[in-house]
Amino acid sequence: MSTELKTSPVVVDTANSPAARLRPVPLNAVELSDTFLEPRRRINRDQTIPSQYRHIEDTGRMDNIRRAAGKKKVDFKGWHFNDSDIHKWLEAAAWDLASHPSPELVELIDRVGVEIADMQQPDGYLHSYFTFEREPERWTNTRFMHELYVAGHFIQAAVAHYRASGDTRLLNVARRLADHICDTFGPAEAGKKAEADGHPEVEMALVELYRATGERKYLDEASFFVEVRRGMGRMNGAEYELKPYREYDRMVGHAVCAVYLAAGVTDVALETGDQTLVAALERLWDHMVTKQLYVTGGIGSRYENEMFGKDYELPSDRAYTETCAAIGNVMWNHRMLALDGQARYADLLEHTLYNAVLPGLSLDGQLYFYQNPLADDGTHRRQEWFGCACCPPNVARLLAQLPGYFYSSDSDRLYVNLYAEGKLDWSLEGQPVRLTTNTRYPWDGDIAITVESAGNFELNLRIPAWCEGVIGLEVAGEQYHGQLVPGTYASIRRDWQAGDTVRLHLPMAVRRLEAHPYSLETWGRVAFMRGPLLYCFEQTDNPGLDLRDLVVPEGTVFAAEFEPDLLNGVVTLRGQAKVAAPGPGWQDRLYRPLTTAVESAQPQTVELKAVPYYAWANREPGQMLIWLRAR
Amino acid sequence: MSTELKTSPVVVDTANSPAARLRPVPLNAVELSDTFLEPRRRINRDQTIPSQYRHIEDTGRMDNIRRAAGKKKVDFKGWHFNDSDIHKWLEAAAWDLASHPSPELVELIDRVGVEIADMQQPDGYLHSYFTFEREPERWTNTRFMHELYVAGHFIQAAVAHYRASGDTRLLNVARRLADHICDTFGPAEAGKKAEADGHPEVEMALVELYRATGERKYLDEASFFVEVRRGMGRMNGAEYELKPYREYDRMVGHAVCAVYLAAGVTDVALETGDQTLVAALERLWDHMVTKQLYVTGGIGSRYENEMFGKDYELPSDRAYTETCAAIGNVMWNHRMLALDGQARYADLLEHTLYNAVLPGLSLDGQLYFYQNPLADDGTHRRQEWFGCACCPPNVARLLAQLPGYFYSSDSDRLYVNLYAEGKLDWSLEGQPVRLTTNTRYPWDGDIAITVESAGNFELNLRIPAWCEGVIGLEVAGEQYHGQLVPGTYASIRRDWQAGDTVRLHLPMAVRRLEAHPYSLETWGRVAFMRGPLLYCFEQTDNPGLDLRDLVVPEGTVFAAEFEPDLLNGVVTLRGQAKVAAPGPGWQDRLYRPLTTAVESAQPQTVELKAVPYYAWANREPGQMLIWLRAR
Repeated sequence: MSTELKTSPVVVDTANSPAARLRPVPLNAVELSDTFLEPRRRINRDQTIPSQYRHIEDTGRMDNIRRAAGKKKVDFKGWHFNDSDIHKWLEAAAWDLASHPSPELVELIDRVGVEIADMQQPDGYLHSYFTFEREPERWTNTRFMHELYVAGHFIQAAVAHYRASGDTRLLNVARRLADHICDTFGPAEAGKKAEADGHPEVEMALVELYRATGERKYLDEASFFVEVRRGMGRMNGAEYELKPYREYDRMVGHAVCAVYLAAGVTDVALETGDQTLVAALERLWDHMVTKQLYVTGGIGSRYENEMFGKDYELPSDRAYTETCAAIGNVMWNHRMLALDGQARYADLLEHTLYNAVLPGLSLDGQLYFYQNPLADDGTHRRQEWFGCACCPPNVARLLAQLPGYFYSSDSDRLYVNLYAEGKLDWSLEGQPVRLTTNTRYPWDGDIAITVESAGNFELNLRIPAWCEGVIGLEVAGEQYHGQLVPGTYASIRRDWQAGDTVRLHLPMAVRRLEAHPYSLETWGRVAFMRGPLLYCFEQTDNPGLDLRDLVVPEGTVFAAEFEPDLLNGVVTLRGQAKVAAPGPGWQDRLYRPLTTAVESAQPQTVELKAVPYYAWANREPGQMLIWLRAR
Repeated sequence: MSTELKTSPVVVDTANSPAARLRPVPLNAVELSDTFLEPRRRINRDQTIPSQYRHIEDTGRMDNIRRAAGKKKVDFKGWHFNDSDIHKWLEAAAWDLASHPSPELVELIDRVGVEIADMQQPDGYLHSYFTFEREPERWTNTRFMHELYVAGHFIQAAVAHYRASGDTRLLNVARRLADHICDTFGPAEAGKKAEADGHPEVEMALVELYRATGERKYLDEASFFVEVRRGMGRMNGAEYELKPYREYDRMVGHAVCAVYLAAGVTDVALETGDQTLVAALERLWDHMVTKQLYVTGGIGSRYENEMFGKDYELPSDRAYTETCAAIGNVMWNHRMLALDGQARYADLLEHTLYNAVLPGLSLDGQLYFYQNPLADDGTHRRQEWFGCACCPPNVARLLAQLPGYFYSSDSDRLYVNLYAEGKLDWSLEGQPVRLTTNTRYPWDGDIAITVESAGNFELNLRIPAWCEGVIGLEVAGEQYHGQLVPGTYASIRRDWQAGDTVRLHLPMAVRRLEAHPYSLETWGRVAFMRGPLLYCFEQTDNPGLDLRDLVVPEGTVFAAEFEPDLLNGVVTLRGQAKVAAPGPGWQDRLYRPLTTAVESAQPQTVELKAVPYYAWANREPGQMLIWLRAR
């Protein structure tokens, strides 16, 4: 398909961004054939995208659009921002087309696209809620009504559709909408509204529209929104000083808002090269990663206002960690990676994708988590849909985009950000680059990349930050002599011969993690990872045990084993723990005199089994726990 | 004053309740002269009640009433339930009169009472919000508009005013209001609204009005509300099955609602003797105390919906623990104590009063906490007032009622529930009982009670559940020969001679507590108590330390010392701890490979000082912590 397109389906188009260190590799240049991600993408295509469209119809979201176009006499149904779910679904469908052309999907996209276009007002306005009797309310409450957020999602969908299909129809609708936004919002001196939306989103969208069209005013408008904003979006708690972006030292408020804004600011910085914005972004990233990040990669710990908590406030059972916030974090890290090429962003991108985004979707692709707790008593289960259904189509569009995250380039340098069995068919400075990757990653750390096209270029392989132990790298049969530093890219430049194979060995021992002592709920506990995957313990694998009672003694070794028939094939971990159930001294009391006496002289030793956290809650309900006691 | 009154200022009048084990002792029979509670009551009288009235005026609450009476043309201001703050203030003022007759306060009460009475509608309805254009909305949204809640607070105020003054004017207003409620709410078969209010409160009020008037239908109406209700009040989360009261095994939802309802159900049970309700109440109490209670006595751990969390969900910094919920818990335990006379209810009443209610009010009586966290970084400070100002007048009415909680009786048995320097002048079955108590409690465990009036009666002294060690009891110079069991009353029956002194010694060693292992944030930590008081560590007493780093080694002894000039005179605790600051291995990371290596070979030993938790945040802002690390 790529040969037929004049457009290129790149997820974030930094090909010409002045401040970008890395350029994108389009998703249709990448073919995944692995057994971990690609089956999820197939389910996304066959189950998730179609079933989401049914939910969109069944819940009146399409009828809201038809009502606004004057085609259907119904009441507006649901949340005033519900159009955004259609737009995100449309974006998901468009990206999917880029990997997998489908006449049926083209037809559905066209039909939905026409329905959306039909409700566009003469001035370019496009939002089904603010029509007819509510037209006078347009743009009157930018803090709470999310009109620019909804507009941003349409613009992103239109850009995706254009890049994936070359079709300019939706792009033109988006331009008229963006022109209207540019006419409406801007400096007060120009007689415009000098306000930003309560929910950031349009910043990313306008920059991407600028990239797709070359129309500079869209970038300027995005910059304007960044500059005019005080705060990071909706902060109902009003606990925070609202100040300019450059003055923040930490992410605050509503997590999805904060991380969407960070992604949008990064987009602006990619185009303008504004180093004061870059400095703020790096400061915020550092703070988030060292004080606000769950071990899953999830962000936003509070249920109230779906917000970031204080530093180290990372409860497990009550983790909010919205799926959309994790997706926003993937989006932000993808942009930060483009900005400066540091592997740490790809590390967090992978970690978040596997351990915070994928848990949001059931293995059958039909049920969703909005919140992603790190511990549960069996009551938190995925749902078919939500009244506020932001998360489901967000997961769908990310899965559809996925191949677009695998590689980046910088002149004749290729960067391998993620690993999976598959092929790359791309070019660097006009020189074809074809690679074949053979690996069972993430189940196994052996990755063989065969260069199928002769030529001189630099191959940069991400050495994940999680590596502990001996990393191996062999290039065409010879050992690599450079440094192999976890959390950086290993660079290999040579005159490649077709058939040269690079063999990377990433050590996949089971790793035991502890959390910072100020993180009160996890202090003194242990979590397990293997490779990029975080593990959890589920009741169903550990029958008869109360998971809260398990203590993993020092030095316990957990062994990994691939179980092909479990949860679509996973590596499980097995090991032993002691059972330290609260003794009889805890009968009927919540507090007691401090005692150091051992209550059970001979604690029982039991066998445990852990499964990857992304696969939890796909079987019968029961306890789930990531952090076991370490003492 | 007691001799002039035909009415008796008892807080909850179980004098004739068929199912009550204990009878009340009116608050004007008790004179407190201690240096712990009585100064707070004096400040309540001199500062809190007057300043609250100013806030009530300044925020338009009185004008809302005047508007409703047609006296003032203003817009309704604030929350639709704001009348309840006036009513609770009125109740506080009325109870205060019973201890301390004041012509000025009588005049103010009369004036406010007349203003409220003036807005009563011809049919008895009394709520300023639902007047004029909103009159048609009356009783149309019982779940959210809190009309019965507001009505309940007025009825309680009127009953208090009547009992404290003998004046029937407000009581008659309350009767007309209650008659209107009885006409409006009842069985559907009778053509009435078969609904209960989203916020329980009116149940208690109607039972008390029944007790004050003898009008049976008010009790029946309270019973009706208990029977018709599904759930425990507002549960915005809709996470709970809404079911009849008798089917609950635990407190759920909004904590203040749940505990006000429990108090109201107890009132109904006191009058009806319904043992199925009693069984439910005992089950709920047991569960709450063993799974949902903070070490402070506070309840309701979640910010979202101000609600109970799951079992053992008791975060410290994010504890919600609304002051009103603690007050509701005092009210409930007071009623449970009347119901079956078990000391455990008096134990929790005292504990909650000292450690969960008193922290809600600044020492100067002018600033209030709505939430009462168990840890803070210096940002949580008391406020002058709130938009939703339920807590301030609730504290004021409890302090005004306080002497009414000290004693109970059962024929010729007297129960001493709380201890403080002061006098009792009361009678049992016509026989005068006069006691003088000399003690420095809660700072000291020696309590001398001198019987000033000869006679034969049983004196029951509460032996607090917190006692550890040797309890002493001497009666008129002779050692007591009965059992002294913490958490029960010790009974002394004899022919008392005037001047007989009972000397009770409660051991006041510093106690170290640990929390149940399932309470994740407090597991492995230690909290300090001495006598009935919980302690905390504040930055200002421990300069230069990060309180999160302190580890209290096994066997550390904390010493108590009275400091007369600190915080109006408190016993402080002093001891040593080790400083275990996160080592360099924690630099810039939130998670790391589990290590058991000791990072600091020689941890520094430092001197610590703790103050009673009720007195925290009365000095310069800084860290506060109750639970220190125990390892």
